[in-house]
Amino acid sequence: MSIKKILVSVYKKDGLVDFVKALKTEFNVKIISSGGTAKVLRSAGIDVQDVSDYTGAPELFGGRIKTIHPRVAGGLLFRRDDPGDVSEASANNIEAIDMVVCNLYPFGEVIKDPATSLDGAVEMIDIGGPTMIRAAAKNFKHVTVVSRREQQDMVLKEMRENNGDTTLETRRKLAIDVFRTMATYDTAVFKYLEKQAGTAEKFPDVLVKIYDKNHLCRYGENWDQEAAFYTDRDSKMGIGTLGKLWGKEISFNNYLDIDACFQTLLDLNKFQHACVIFKHTNPNGVAVDEKTQLEACKRAFSCDPLSAFGGIWGFNKPIEPEVAKYLIEEKNVFIEVLIAPKIPDQARKIMAKKENMRVLEFSDLLTKRDELYKNHLDMRGILGGVLAQDYDCGPIVKEWNVMTKRPVSSAEKDTLIFAMIIAKFAKSNSAVFAKKTPTGMYTIGIGTGQQSRVHVVKLAHSKAIEFGHDTKGSVMATDSFFPFPDGFEAGVAAGALAIACPGGSIRDSDVIKRADELGASLVFTKKRVFRH
Amino acid sequence: MSIKKILVSVYKKDGLVDFVKALKTEFNVKIISSGGTAKVLRSAGIDVQDVSDYTGAPELFGGRIKTIHPRVAGGLLFRRDDPGDVSEASANNIEAIDMVVCNLYPFGEVIKDPATSLDGAVEMIDIGGPTMIRAAAKNFKHVTVVSRREQQDMVLKEMRENNGDTTLETRRKLAIDVFRTMATYDTAVFKYLEKQAGTAEKFPDVLVKIYDKNHLCRYGENWDQEAAFYTDRDSKMGIGTLGKLWGKEISFNNYLDIDACFQTLLDLNKFQHACVIFKHTNPNGVAVDEKTQLEACKRAFSCDPLSAFGGIWGFNKPIEPEVAKYLIEEKNVFIEVLIAPKIPDQARKIMAKKENMRVLEFSDLLTKRDELYKNHLDMRGILGGVLAQDYDCGPIVKEWNVMTKRPVSSAEKDTLIFAMIIAKFAKSNSAVFAKKTPTGMYTIGIGTGQQSRVHVVKLAHSKAIEFGHDTKGSVMATDSFFPFPDGFEAGVAAGALAIACPGGSIRDSDVIKRADELGASLVFTKKRVFRH
Repeated sequence: MSIKKILVSVYKKDGLVDFVKALKTEFNVKIISSGGTAKVLRSAGIDVQDVSDYTGAPELFGGRIKTIHPRVAGGLLFRRDDPGDVSEASANNIEAIDMVVCNLYPFGEVIKDPATSLDGAVEMIDIGGPTMIRAAAKNFKHVTVVSRREQQDMVLKEMRENNGDTTLETRRKLAIDVFRTMATYDTAVFKYLEKQAGTAEKFPDVLVKIYDKNHLCRYGENWDQEAAFYTDRDSKMGIGTLGKLWGKEISFNNYLDIDACFQTLLDLNKFQHACVIFKHTNPNGVAVDEKTQLEACKRAFSCDPLSAFGGIWGFNKPIEPEVAKYLIEEKNVFIEVLIAPKIPDQARKIMAKKENMRVLEFSDLLTKRDELYKNHLDMRGILGGVLAQDYDCGPIVKEWNVMTKRPVSSAEKDTLIFAMIIAKFAKSNSAVFAKKTPTGMYTIGIGTGQQSRVHVVKLAHSKAIEFGHDTKGSVMATDSFFPFPDGFEAGVAAGALAIACPGGSIRDSDVIKRADELGASLVFTKKRVFRH
Repeated sequence: MSIKKILVSVYKKDGLVDFVKALKTEFNVKIISSGGTAKVLRSAGIDVQDVSDYTGAPELFGGRIKTIHPRVAGGLLFRRDDPGDVSEASANNIEAIDMVVCNLYPFGEVIKDPATSLDGAVEMIDIGGPTMIRAAAKNFKHVTVVSRREQQDMVLKEMRENNGDTTLETRRKLAIDVFRTMATYDTAVFKYLEKQAGTAEKFPDVLVKIYDKNHLCRYGENWDQEAAFYTDRDSKMGIGTLGKLWGKEISFNNYLDIDACFQTLLDLNKFQHACVIFKHTNPNGVAVDEKTQLEACKRAFSCDPLSAFGGIWGFNKPIEPEVAKYLIEEKNVFIEVLIAPKIPDQARKIMAKKENMRVLEFSDLLTKRDELYKNHLDMRGILGGVLAQDYDCGPIVKEWNVMTKRPVSSAEKDTLIFAMIIAKFAKSNSAVFAKKTPTGMYTIGIGTGQQSRVHVVKLAHSKAIEFGHDTKGSVMATDSFFPFPDGFEAGVAAGALAIACPGGSIRDSDVIKRADELGASLVFTKKRVFRH
């Protein structure tokens, strides 16, 4: 059965005239149309019948009612292979409409314009269009629905090869597309109305997430896993907005590290210069400096130059030429990914020879911390579902309670808070030894991902020793409480003078007592910073 | 303006008669209805007008066309506060319909029945209902739409308190609900049609995910984060189906550990008895045994009894009484969560005194590994988006290539594969020392979450030593290649006779050469098992 009668009613009209003209001239279809669409087609010399003429019912309410009519919906919906339907159609003067060409009012685009009022947005909620395309899609056995510009060429080509008809397979694909489009369309509507009303719940009973494919990865976490990176339609602001300047393709694991590295920078942006090195989603060297970016860079690298090999490096300020030079020339520096707000021309020229290094700019994104965290939930898939939570973006210290006799100096306090930020971004359990420099602070030993407190402290210490750091006179922060005094003792034995933890163990008093015996400071911050 | 005329057309009719009767008797509303709904209302003594009588158009095509008509849609859509609309309505004999009571054909439920045919499912795609409720929702300024049973009482209550009208706030909430319902409805439709057609893409351009709230957590990963666990409507099979017998509330971090622990059991289910202990999403002791569950349990605990404190324990077989007794009576065993296919009565009685321990049964879920992994993507949120990938569920060994002169015994091979499974579930970089026992295998040192290969090997060794394990004669597996020979050397220095890694470093030949010099075996498995 070739396509004989079509209904055309579109909002976006690009490509429309050529498409409909081809349908008319090559297949002699009869065309029903309405309003602006009819006008455009007629002025291109295409003969069309007005929908209101076809239905015998007028267009009403400023366009709110145009196509909602049994002669339209019925013409789309009746089963051509059901004799009862066919005779009912005939008895009721309902003609088969074989194809609908229709795209919806661009609700999603209109609401992006801050000038759009609630009334203006509501007017853009399409009712007639969805009725037609859903009806046509339901009847995909018989009816073709072209709901996107991109589908026109494919449909035309198929009709040319297929005696003026489409295949069932194509009609089904087009129908699937309709219901997918409706799902995302109505999601945009309800989320907009909720936001306007201020009634959006953080954890609604039904959570609808729409994601747009940003990048199909070459593989996932491992070579035999397929993977893709999707941006969140609720707010695309985030890792998807980083602009790549050059370098190899971003891998799945790169994305994880870029995310962790960027978030650490978000927390360190109050410092003049920050340099953060990540590997396997753990920080392995971090430094801040009030004077020069180069100093922050060198100090961060010095923490664990071995593990930094193939790491992800992030800076909170545009890359300075001397830093670019250092990163290129320093032996043992091998960078997989470099992120910074900007790579100015001079730095670009210096680093351009490193063709494989992935280089990304994130512009002013560090200034949007609140917005970034407010607009997103931290989503973590588990088998059969997802854990959704707020990002851990509150103050790193909730209370500053020095629990011991030994006071904590202002310099120690600064360094403890710095160390706690790094402990937050290291996988639990974590422990971070840090030290002051004349112009900044840096990590000298980072222990990560341990199942006990005492082990992670010892691990952090052993790494500091291995890379020649003197832990005497340092401070240490750890992401949760000490269940026993042993972890604290290990920190003091390493040379830490002051140690910060959230507190909250049933044996806190034992730990405090032991700290006083050892003459070291213990601070409870009341803020646990687990990260798994 | 009180509600004067309502249209009632529902599929599910529970509560309907009482609701409509109250509307009629208390507010004297005029009722339009159709088909089965009209019949039910009439037989309850409620006076209704047929939709076809109201529209003057017959019901057609076996119900495919009932309410799609300008007199219905127009009555819902015209702006009561727009004089032009009002006079057009009057001129076209369109009366205001102030409320719609309508729920949709239960497409989502019907397709769950395996007996449903494609045609049967398609017939259940509601067209008229969505047109009405979407039209009413668009005009929420003036029109009330009751689309779910649960809303009836609230609406009635409000009308009683509000002179027969609803508030704008309520109408907006009901409208939001309509568009949310439509989003999930049409998602179910397109996913069903895609599945039937076999055209579902793993990574479509637009990924639509619908999640249902399973559990609002008391807090998230840390105390100041709010969180919830959602199940995936694509397939709820998974962690959400575990049944809790008793114990404290499952926390956010418990869910993460339960997931990791369960997935490890999935990979160990070929063994007669497996016991897996997790802490902070890392395994800290794992054992399998061909003879007794108790032996597996004791061996798993022996690996690192310190970190096991407060851990998540999982078993692949129903808990035996002697194991229940051991878990309760053994000093230093403190379990946060226990999971097993079943906790038989005898074991329940023994463990019941541990009221706080969370105890969950997962029934036959271990037998559904393929289905579980096929139906789900591994989703990992990053700021502004999500990384989606296949679960890492392929064979743990892709090739078994012994690269060195020293052969690998069959016992060593078994133990290496066992160790590699544990290395897969430990955070990267990971290294696992394991040993055979007369009846099974167990881990004796697990290193996790390190940024360099050599460090994690040393860490795993140091933990083995600390807990009195003899690493001489052991085997070791690690999750990725050795970038330098040092990590391999550290494994051999610890006493490992055979070491497995995926291979793939540019310095593989150096590592092989060194292995031959040391007289140890090196196996390349060609399967990396990163887990971040």
